[in-house]
Amino acid sequence: MRSFDLQDYLTEKKRQFEQALPAFLPNTGVPETLTESMEYSLFAGGKRIRPIALFATMESFGKNWEIGMPVASAVEMIHTYSLIHDDLPAMDNDDFRRGKPTNHKRYGEATAILAGDGLLTEAFRAVCRLQEHGVNPTTVLNVICELSRYAGPQGMVGGQMADLLGEGKQLQLAELQYIHQHKTADLLVFCIRAGAHLSEATDEQLELLTTFGRNIGLAFQIQDDILDIYGEASKLGKAIGGDAAKGKSTYPSLLGLEESQKHLNQLVSEAKEALYKTGIDTHILEALADFIVQRDQ
Amino acid sequence: MRSFDLQDYLTEKKRQFEQALPAFLPNTGVPETLTESMEYSLFAGGKRIRPIALFATMESFGKNWEIGMPVASAVEMIHTYSLIHDDLPAMDNDDFRRGKPTNHKRYGEATAILAGDGLLTEAFRAVCRLQEHGVNPTTVLNVICELSRYAGPQGMVGGQMADLLGEGKQLQLAELQYIHQHKTADLLVFCIRAGAHLSEATDEQLELLTTFGRNIGLAFQIQDDILDIYGEASKLGKAIGGDAAKGKSTYPSLLGLEESQKHLNQLVSEAKEALYKTGIDTHILEALADFIVQRDQ
Repeated sequence: MRSFDLQDYLTEKKRQFEQALPAFLPNTGVPETLTESMEYSLFAGGKRIRPIALFATMESFGKNWEIGMPVASAVEMIHTYSLIHDDLPAMDNDDFRRGKPTNHKRYGEATAILAGDGLLTEAFRAVCRLQEHGVNPTTVLNVICELSRYAGPQGMVGGQMADLLGEGKQLQLAELQYIHQHKTADLLVFCIRAGAHLSEATDEQLELLTTFGRNIGLAFQIQDDILDIYGEASKLGKAIGGDAAKGKSTYPSLLGLEESQKHLNQLVSEAKEALYKTGIDTHILEALADFIVQRDQ
Repeated sequence: MRSFDLQDYLTEKKRQFEQALPAFLPNTGVPETLTESMEYSLFAGGKRIRPIALFATMESFGKNWEIGMPVASAVEMIHTYSLIHDDLPAMDNDDFRRGKPTNHKRYGEATAILAGDGLLTEAFRAVCRLQEHGVNPTTVLNVICELSRYAGPQGMVGGQMADLLGEGKQLQLAELQYIHQHKTADLLVFCIRAGAHLSEATDEQLELLTTFGRNIGLAFQIQDDILDIYGEASKLGKAIGGDAAKGKSTYPSLLGLEESQKHLNQLVSEAKEALYKTGIDTHILEALADFIVQRDQ
């Protein structure tokens, strides 16, 4: 598989995902403004890295990625709702996201709150549609339970809260790691675990892939922190230096650039080690891990 | 069953529900402020009418209500999150709820938003715990799918949106009914349907109970509208006249008190008619329907 081109893979999977995504939103019985507002953010692009991680995991097991579409849609709805709520004036108060006005800037705060609530609620119905692909009900329930855990108070919402509480404070590394793990890594870990569940992975494979997911999730966030200081606004589609302006601790602010980079490389190398032990085809997930270290947006 | 006392039933079931409820929130790995904020609103009391409607439905089928506890907890988490978000400055901007400062008044807006998100997400994990009672996975999935539908953009969130869009406008009766059905009735309908699903109701029974639930849900909201004008603030635990102050259309403002009362009675009478046709024990649900017409808080 020397000829594997991750950029092509990302582009193709993103296209396929975005083509299938609209079918997972309700198309009747919803006030028009609410639909518009949900679609505005859900269809705003982005890298779709979480859905792709799920598809990649399934393909690494030799499974058809399309079976994972209901879960991929759900995760992207949840990721999107978290961005909408995160951008609100009471939270990060961001005016732009992916080069466009944020949801509340476009539709007002009340609608943005409800669009977030709507996407979060609808996500769980999307997962139920795994049944249409013949996935057995116990596996579907397993995925729903994990989605709730990794996205909820013990997961992403908890990370978000810790992030807010940490603003303007000098955090310890362990606190920053808690934030990164839950705010960013958890949804990615969920995607990889869900891909493994849908591929009937063994418990050992599930554990190894969880390590893989957690490490690349943390690496992803460290790279984000680095890009927030050293990246280019035009590529990122948002202003640079936002973390510092908000008094947020970051890896570079705590450890410096060089140490952060080292830490990131270490995480990726451990991730790959776990991956190799799974015995599945590793070339896509490996390339995905490398991509995370090298990306500039 | 002449001696049935609904007040005793409500008090007892509320007590039992509130005793079992804490076990459905995660007790580790959540930032303390987030846990506090979620518990502040979830344990703030209230009538617990939705959980009780679910228990009453199950008991009407001769089922053990305790099996429904995971769903009852989930519904109360979702009801609670909707109140937290509804009270936010960008939404209804209420300072008091059930005689206490609203969540954002107590914990700040950012935490209130996250507490709402956390409760909503955790609700779906609570439902998964039906499996601990031996409920078959397909039924559990059915309940999860319906919870997402009745609470989401086609349900409660949609009703909330329509309510916001209608502020300051003179609504048509049909528009007001859409709002009432989705904002208020949908969660109650869900509870009654979930109770029926857990009791292995026939499709016909499910349909009849859906009519029952929708009608008493609408009646409940009309009574709420009436109490907002003619009730006593001390009993309600909130200020009177809030709807009018916000320029919200209500049944009394559209139809007058007498017509509203008539409409309410009509809904309850149709609800009972549907109920009688189910062939189940009707005395609890019937008393519950009457209670809704007569309550003063």
